[in-house]
Amino acid sequence: MNAEPPERVSLGGLGERELIRRIRRSAAASSASPGVEVGIGDDTAVLAVPPGHKLLATTDLLIEDVHFRRTSAAPADIGWKALAVNLSDIAAMGGIPRWALVALAVPADTDVEAVDAFYAGMAEAAEPHGVTVVGGDTSASPGGWTVNVTLLGIHPGEPRLRSHARAGDAVAVTGSLGVSAAGLHALEIGLDRARDAGLAAARLGEITRAHLRPRARVAEGRWLGQAPGVHAMMDCSDGLATDLGHICRESGVGARVRLERVPVAPAAREAARALGADAREWAVSGGEDYELLLTCDPSEADHLSAGLVEATGTPLTVIGRIEGAAGETVFVNAAGAPVAVRGGFEHFHG
Amino acid sequence: MNAEPPERVSLGGLGERELIRRIRRSAAASSASPGVEVGIGDDTAVLAVPPGHKLLATTDLLIEDVHFRRTSAAPADIGWKALAVNLSDIAAMGGIPRWALVALAVPADTDVEAVDAFYAGMAEAAEPHGVTVVGGDTSASPGGWTVNVTLLGIHPGEPRLRSHARAGDAVAVTGSLGVSAAGLHALEIGLDRARDAGLAAARLGEITRAHLRPRARVAEGRWLGQAPGVHAMMDCSDGLATDLGHICRESGVGARVRLERVPVAPAAREAARALGADAREWAVSGGEDYELLLTCDPSEADHLSAGLVEATGTPLTVIGRIEGAAGETVFVNAAGAPVAVRGGFEHFHG
Repeated sequence: MNAEPPERVSLGGLGERELIRRIRRSAAASSASPGVEVGIGDDTAVLAVPPGHKLLATTDLLIEDVHFRRTSAAPADIGWKALAVNLSDIAAMGGIPRWALVALAVPADTDVEAVDAFYAGMAEAAEPHGVTVVGGDTSASPGGWTVNVTLLGIHPGEPRLRSHARAGDAVAVTGSLGVSAAGLHALEIGLDRARDAGLAAARLGEITRAHLRPRARVAEGRWLGQAPGVHAMMDCSDGLATDLGHICRESGVGARVRLERVPVAPAAREAARALGADAREWAVSGGEDYELLLTCDPSEADHLSAGLVEATGTPLTVIGRIEGAAGETVFVNAAGAPVAVRGGFEHFHG
Repeated sequence: MNAEPPERVSLGGLGERELIRRIRRSAAASSASPGVEVGIGDDTAVLAVPPGHKLLATTDLLIEDVHFRRTSAAPADIGWKALAVNLSDIAAMGGIPRWALVALAVPADTDVEAVDAFYAGMAEAAEPHGVTVVGGDTSASPGGWTVNVTLLGIHPGEPRLRSHARAGDAVAVTGSLGVSAAGLHALEIGLDRARDAGLAAARLGEITRAHLRPRARVAEGRWLGQAPGVHAMMDCSDGLATDLGHICRESGVGARVRLERVPVAPAAREAARALGADAREWAVSGGEDYELLLTCDPSEADHLSAGLVEATGTPLTVIGRIEGAAGETVFVNAAGAPVAVRGGFEHFHG
C-alpha cells in the first residue's frame, strides 16, 4: 500500500481516520470491479447488481489462535486467506465474486506496516478475480487479530446448492486433497523439525504455502456451475468427510466413497512419508484444501472431467456414489468394507 | 429461541453443528424478508434484489471491552445493538434494510442460553424492519465476545451521500442528542452511584436503555431519503462534531453550528444535573445516539421539519449552516463566538 513509512509507526500513532484514508487509497488504486457506485467512505456501499443476476452473500470470521497463528502466518498471508476462503464459497455456488467488506481489529500498538501488508495480501488474492473492497470497519482489539470478510457475488443463472444431490449421482472432487493439512502439520511441528525429517525445502514451501495461501477454485466453479449434469456442489473447507456429510444431510441422501479413489496430493504423500503421518487421513479429514465437491449425473461424469481439465487445467475425480441410508457417509476400502474416518474440524469441541 | 435447555449447557457441550441448527431454526421461525431464495445452510445466501433497486452494504465489528462490556450489556443487548448500528447506516442512505449476515465468536464455555439470548435480541431489533438473518459464521474465541454484522439493504432511487452538502445548506438533525452518552456515563460510574446522586430509577432506565438498545431512524431515513431538498445525510454514531466533520470533508465544505440550537435530550439534561456533567458536551461529542444528520436546501427546512414530524413523529431541528472554510466545522455560541468542542470518538487513540 503506497510508500512505506520512514520509521516504525503504530496504529495508535497513526489514528483511525488516517488508517481508513490509507485503506481507501489502496482500494481506489486497484481497478474497481463493475457495479461500484459508492465504495469506502459513506454510511454504506452502493452497488449495482446486473439485471437478471442473483446476489450471493457469504461471511467468514477469522480469529488469531483459532484460525491462524501470527507465528506462522504473516499479515499478508492472513489478508490473502481471509479473502480466499470467501472466494471459495462463491466458487462453490458457481458464482462470480465481486465486492468485499472487510472488518479488521488489531491491538493499538500494531505496526502500520503490518496492517498495510494485510490489505496488500488481500488485494493480491482479490485482483485476479476483479474483486474490490467497498467497505469495512476498523477497531482496536484488546486481544489478538480478528478479521471478518463478507464477500458479495453475482450469479446469472441457478446457483449450485448443497441440497441438490440425487440418489444414483456420482460424487466427484476437483484437484487433489491433503496438502493443506500437510502444511498445517509441518507448521505445527516446526519447519526445522520437518526439514530434519528429510522433507525437501521446496516441498515444505509448497505445502505450507497451500495452507497459508489457499487458492479458491473460482474458474472451476464457474465452469461446473454452468455445465449440464452437475447437481449439488460445495467447497471442501472442513474436510471431505464432514463436507460430504453436509451435502447428504441437506439433500436427504447417503453417500458411499471408495477411499482408494480419493485423489491425495503427491506433496501430501511425500510429506506424510517423511513425517510419519497418514496422507489419506489428511485428504479425508484434514480440510482447508478448498477444492470443489460435487454430485452429478453419472452418465455425465466423464464428459465433465474432460471438459473441466480442458477449460481450466484442473482434474475432476469420481470418488463415490450417492446411495444408502439418508444422512450417512460411508467410506469403503477396495474390497468394499467400511473404513472409519475422522469427521473433520468442528468449532467448540476440544 | 425455542425451549430452554433443561440445565446449563455450554457451547463446548452442544457443538458447532447443533448451534448452527439452532440459529437456522430461529431464522426460519421469523417471517422471511422478500428476496431470500436461499438462507442459512449453503455456501452462500442467494438473494434477489428487486429490479430498478440499488444494493446497499455495510458491516460493523463489535468487540468486548472496546464496544461493549459484558458487565453492563446482556447478551440480548449485544445482539440488539449489533444489528441496530447497521440498521442506522442503511437508514442514513435512505434505504430499506433487508438481509443480515452475522458472525459470532464466543468462548467455548459460554452458556448456550447466552448465545440464544444474543440471537433473540438481534431478532427483536430486526423484526420491526423485516430483516432476516440469511447467513453467518460461528467460532470459538480465545478472548471475549466478538460480533460482526453485515447488513444488506436496497434503495429504489438515489441514496443520500455524505458528499452532497452544498454551500448555503441548512444543517439539521433528527430527534435529540446526548442520551446515549448519559447512559454510558451512568453505566461507567455505576448504577448505584447514579441513583445515590439522585437520578430517578425511571430516568436511569431510560438513558441506559438508549445506550444499550439504540433505535435506528429507519422510517425517518426512508422519508428524508425521498423528500425533495435533502442533500447530504449520515447517521450520528461518532458524535455530532466528528460526524459533521465527515460531511464537510467528503463534500469539500465547511459548517457553522449554533451550539444553543443543538437539541439536547431532556433525559440527558436531567442526568447531567444529577451527576454533575455537561449535557451539551454529551450531545455534541458523545456519539451513539444514531440520529440522522443532514444538510438541505434552507428554503425547504421548515417544510421538511413539518413533514417528518407528521410522517414519523420525530422532530427535525436546524442547528447551523454550510459555510466557511472547506473541512472546518465551527461551533459558535449565541453571540456568534467560536466555542471549542471535543471531536468525538476515534479508535486506536488512547
